[in-house]
Amino acid sequence: MPASSRSLTYRETGVDIAAKEEILAGVRARIRATHREGTLGTGGEFGGLFRLTGYRDPVIVSSIDGVGTKTRVALWAGRPARAGADIVAHGANDVVCQGAAPLFMLDYVASSSLDPAVVSGAIEGIAEACAAQGITLLGGETAEMPGVYARGELDIVGCTVGAVERGEIITGAEIRPGDAVVGLASDGLHTNGYTLARAVLLPRGPRDAVRRALARKLPGLGETVEEALLRPHRPYARSVLGLRRRVALHGIAHVTGGGLPGNLVRVLPDGCHAVLTRSRWPVPPVFTVIQRRGRIADEEMFRTFNMGLGLLLVVPRGSSAAAVRLLESAGERAWAVGEIVSGTRGVEIRA
Amino acid sequence: MPASSRSLTYRETGVDIAAKEEILAGVRARIRATHREGTLGTGGEFGGLFRLTGYRDPVIVSSIDGVGTKTRVALWAGRPARAGADIVAHGANDVVCQGAAPLFMLDYVASSSLDPAVVSGAIEGIAEACAAQGITLLGGETAEMPGVYARGELDIVGCTVGAVERGEIITGAEIRPGDAVVGLASDGLHTNGYTLARAVLLPRGPRDAVRRALARKLPGLGETVEEALLRPHRPYARSVLGLRRRVALHGIAHVTGGGLPGNLVRVLPDGCHAVLTRSRWPVPPVFTVIQRRGRIADEEMFRTFNMGLGLLLVVPRGSSAAAVRLLESAGERAWAVGEIVSGTRGVEIRA
Repeated sequence: MPASSRSLTYRETGVDIAAKEEILAGVRARIRATHREGTLGTGGEFGGLFRLTGYRDPVIVSSIDGVGTKTRVALWAGRPARAGADIVAHGANDVVCQGAAPLFMLDYVASSSLDPAVVSGAIEGIAEACAAQGITLLGGETAEMPGVYARGELDIVGCTVGAVERGEIITGAEIRPGDAVVGLASDGLHTNGYTLARAVLLPRGPRDAVRRALARKLPGLGETVEEALLRPHRPYARSVLGLRRRVALHGIAHVTGGGLPGNLVRVLPDGCHAVLTRSRWPVPPVFTVIQRRGRIADEEMFRTFNMGLGLLLVVPRGSSAAAVRLLESAGERAWAVGEIVSGTRGVEIRA
Repeated sequence: MPASSRSLTYRETGVDIAAKEEILAGVRARIRATHREGTLGTGGEFGGLFRLTGYRDPVIVSSIDGVGTKTRVALWAGRPARAGADIVAHGANDVVCQGAAPLFMLDYVASSSLDPAVVSGAIEGIAEACAAQGITLLGGETAEMPGVYARGELDIVGCTVGAVERGEIITGAEIRPGDAVVGLASDGLHTNGYTLARAVLLPRGPRDAVRRALARKLPGLGETVEEALLRPHRPYARSVLGLRRRVALHGIAHVTGGGLPGNLVRVLPDGCHAVLTRSRWPVPPVFTVIQRRGRIADEEMFRTFNMGLGLLLVVPRGSSAAAVRLLESAGERAWAVGEIVSGTRGVEIRA
């Protein structure tokens, strides 16, 4: 029991409410710039307010996730905004899998101690990505938890909320044998597999050694390790919602933890077996470099990383060429990467 | 650069996807038991689905927050479910401040390594509290982040979503001089001030010493330190939504970080000054024990802890007695604790 000889304040125990206020003051204008139509209130409410208009029978679609240990790479590189932006794309890609338009998100940024530059940077990255993607940053929390987080580390969590008409929900139930699978190019690792990627590409420490490793151009990579590891998670919601007006989408899978097989299987109905053919899309150099240097088995690579495809669409037989063309005209790179066949519910990746 | 002499798997780097699956399998039935009317889908979707029915002009109200370092006390005491339950009440209390009924929530539980007993315990606590409060646990994520979290530590985050008719939003704009402030009794610290409370009541370590301190009955406390520190965050949404049908509510403040003054001020319009009189409600022993042992100034206590009031309602002059009576018949303890007067926007606490 500490028999304190003087009075204690919250700040002395490691929690600094003034630092939090300073952070909020600095990012307030950027947060306000994300406020799309439907956003109500001033931002100081206990609960953020968003008016749902234009839906006859609305279904709210929401998802929560964190950036994972990509935050560590972003901090080592001194680029916290980069990790912030990722969670926005991640959440928007999740809700668009059900056919929903992302409307708003709430963020949670927690660390061992509130370094205003780092936390503001992360929130600025979130706000800028929200503004670019037409998503309101409706609320958020910054937490200071000395002892829970390792010194200097932080976590970034986002909860994304969208909406879709009930009759237009995409569930995967319409997927049938003969359907085609279209893959959309990822921009690097997105937000998955960082613990393994770091173990292979970066030393354990000290910090200077990590920074040197980040600045290195590895053979075959074509860019520095930092550039490769900090490519932002690519947002697909706009391209997919645009495509949907022209092509029926039977199922959509966001390729996150679990990789191509672990995520595509989530939308497959019983009796549907997906066969993806690896030669039909280019696996980006970052994955081949990680695999070679870590001597990692193919199966482990495919269940840990997206291997070059960030989102998979299941479309009717005969629609895949049109889907690829429309996606490419919307700025994506896309390929017809596989087919649905009759068989046990599951995903197979062939050479 | 680690020149690995053998192939690496994700598990060897400290991330265990199988442990995550095991956790999910164990809690699935409890999560499903929270599914209230409106919940669609199977739970395996990328975005959770909730149908919004019965609203003419719905406004979605949402809030995100974490349990804070209360998780440390819960882990030391071997009661992770207790920390899980807290985030449910916290989020529901936030959205009811705008007059919204909480509908569903999403949780995020992250730790240095996924100890299935601990993480399942936390999620079970969340699910049980959701079921008790009529809130669907619509989605969630468990993350394993070795190096970001200190060894054995975890964070619990919840995003709560509710809805309210646009014409029935409570903002505080209707508050005027002459209104009364009614306070609802808290059950202990709820989820705020734990870093300071721990610094005062618990030793820094080792673990055995912390456990002994948790088991101690301090003079004046009337219960063990563990019992005092792990009292659940009290959920007020049902009592408040019930009261609203009988008494006009001009403003509602959830007493979290920043205490009574820092939260009540958030709903006050310009020209409204709130005066709370400390003798009108009982300050629970846990706060007086912390203040005495830590030699903490009154002002610091009031901006760090709820001091016995978990939620404040601003009601029209003359309605406070009826509000107190109706709240007590709904199972709350409540007091008329203050008034709104003309003056600078702010909160004053008088002896």
